[in-house]
Amino acid sequence: MQQSFPMNGGDGPHSYLKNSHFQRQATIVSRTMIEEAIAKKLDVKCFSSNPFRLADLGCSVGPNTFIAMQHIVEAVERKYLAQGLNSEMPEFQVFFNDHVANDFNTLFASLPTERRYFACGVPGSFHGRLFPESSIHFMFSSHALHWLSKVPEELLDKNSPAWNRGRIHYTSGPEEVSHAYAAQFEHDMEIFLSARAKELVVGAMIVLLIPALPNGIPASQSPFGVMFDVLGASLMDMAKEGLISEAEVDSFNLPIHLASPEQMTELVERNECLIIERMELVDPRSNLVGPINGKECAMFLRAVLEGVFAQHFGSGIIDQLFDRLSKKIMESSHQLESGNKEGTLLFVVLRRK
Amino acid sequence: MQQSFPMNGGDGPHSYLKNSHFQRQATIVSRTMIEEAIAKKLDVKCFSSNPFRLADLGCSVGPNTFIAMQHIVEAVERKYLAQGLNSEMPEFQVFFNDHVANDFNTLFASLPTERRYFACGVPGSFHGRLFPESSIHFMFSSHALHWLSKVPEELLDKNSPAWNRGRIHYTSGPEEVSHAYAAQFEHDMEIFLSARAKELVVGAMIVLLIPALPNGIPASQSPFGVMFDVLGASLMDMAKEGLISEAEVDSFNLPIHLASPEQMTELVERNECLIIERMELVDPRSNLVGPINGKECAMFLRAVLEGVFAQHFGSGIIDQLFDRLSKKIMESSHQLESGNKEGTLLFVVLRRK
Repeated sequence: MQQSFPMNGGDGPHSYLKNSHFQRQATIVSRTMIEEAIAKKLDVKCFSSNPFRLADLGCSVGPNTFIAMQHIVEAVERKYLAQGLNSEMPEFQVFFNDHVANDFNTLFASLPTERRYFACGVPGSFHGRLFPESSIHFMFSSHALHWLSKVPEELLDKNSPAWNRGRIHYTSGPEEVSHAYAAQFEHDMEIFLSARAKELVVGAMIVLLIPALPNGIPASQSPFGVMFDVLGASLMDMAKEGLISEAEVDSFNLPIHLASPEQMTELVERNECLIIERMELVDPRSNLVGPINGKECAMFLRAVLEGVFAQHFGSGIIDQLFDRLSKKIMESSHQLESGNKEGTLLFVVLRRK
Repeated sequence: MQQSFPMNGGDGPHSYLKNSHFQRQATIVSRTMIEEAIAKKLDVKCFSSNPFRLADLGCSVGPNTFIAMQHIVEAVERKYLAQGLNSEMPEFQVFFNDHVANDFNTLFASLPTERRYFACGVPGSFHGRLFPESSIHFMFSSHALHWLSKVPEELLDKNSPAWNRGRIHYTSGPEEVSHAYAAQFEHDMEIFLSARAKELVVGAMIVLLIPALPNGIPASQSPFGVMFDVLGASLMDMAKEGLISEAEVDSFNLPIHLASPEQMTELVERNECLIIERMELVDPRSNLVGPINGKECAMFLRAVLEGVFAQHFGSGIIDQLFDRLSKKIMESSHQLESGNKEGTLLFVVLRRK
């Protein structure tokens, strides 16, 4: 059974819609890289048929997905012009995909009215088929592929060396826990890439933005790892105060994996239909100025993670958990700021052979 | 500005999901007619490309749309087999369309898990383009095309002969009111048919089920007309008791038109890309046994019409309005049962030339 943890829906103060400017930095940083990939590597001449179909996998509720889709449509239009195909300019159709539990009503209500594409919503997990064979010309996925399809089962087995006691993630945990996470990620990516290879037309492009780690660096030295540790520590504090039980913390694991460029390269190379056009780490934080703001960080994490915590611990603890997190982030700000500068986001361009 | 009045969302006691068995009768009655149209008139050999794309325009929230789409997919599969195209059996992609305000979250959550098609939601009015050019092979629309895109403006002008004082529909009203409704319907259908002609591939089929009237019969002799009159009378009673004002009734008009086969034929013939394969009235009531049940009728009308009444009169009057309706329907049951037996639903099959 696959698990689904949608971003916070609606447009309230804790919504993803109002708290996704961190992910938006990634869109800004990657914009020119995507434009370059389309300009240099997307051969639109090999697409015989109108329309041009795009998909955003794990789009959540906007507005980031609308900004990204708009940029891609414009870059593809420029490519048609650059290739002298003015008279063959296609119509565009954009498929917005996310889990069934995603708030599609909010997504649809906030679609830009001036859009130059036909819009569709596609409910379902991208760890499986979503589209007919050879039907998509460009796929995009931002801040979504680090979610595992499920928590590896051995983490919950008290008799397994991978039992993850007192922690909520593999960061700072024993090797067996990391291995269980990595194995699940590899399994998920294999299914993801094989489904995409079927759905893409020959010559089509995939652009992925994935929270990640530099090669050879442990999760505990990445900002995400530090934040997961801090979240785990906040929960253990609450357990010690009797607000929740330690057993509840032991049995909870964040289904998030941070891949390295090495690991991703190996996984893509296992798939015979896809080739890597570009893969490198970028640092979206380089665009953010000023010191770390604990409250803002906590709001960003809450919009993304509230669902997965509320499902396990109940919604009663959420306000307190993220209040504590906000304070603890400030205490760890030195660790967060001095962490690796090689980048926290993997930018990947793949092409369908 | 187009208006949108979604069916009641969610799955509560007044939801469309729980109160659409009347419309389901239409699906049952029309099933064999659709199968026959596909078997005899749909030439799947002329569709070169995989996948086979279907759309339901004005699908609401289910379950009727799922039943209809399933039947159509099965009938098309049989047609491929009958034409000896076993090895070319396509994958299916179904586009569920309705207004942006439709409850797509409920629709997606209730999608059949065992479906044999890729599902998409398409938000937007079918009084305009929804899909790329030449991209759909089969379109279906049930109980949707009788909704006008907006209330004709002259109905609200006190100085116009089409001012619709003391009524909420053209049933039993002066000729000018009927003309204003008919003109709006013709305008809407022209836009609808021209958009569909662009979106359909050559040889594609449209099946429409539209609440309608026999040729030459006034709306006041149809069950729908009687019910609209009874709804109007209930509102006027409430106005006389001071619960609402007469001016509110005067300024309210149900944006619903009941077409005749003659009118529909003329409208389709104006479009140069579509031809009529079949058009006839059917009577979904013939499947219902027993006397008219006022409460059931009122529940059915409420699931469909609550939104449009609540928007104008406020939601405070809704319970009372439909309670009164339920009683008045019983008083008019003779009129409802003795009405025309020629059928209340127009079954239309069109083909893209």
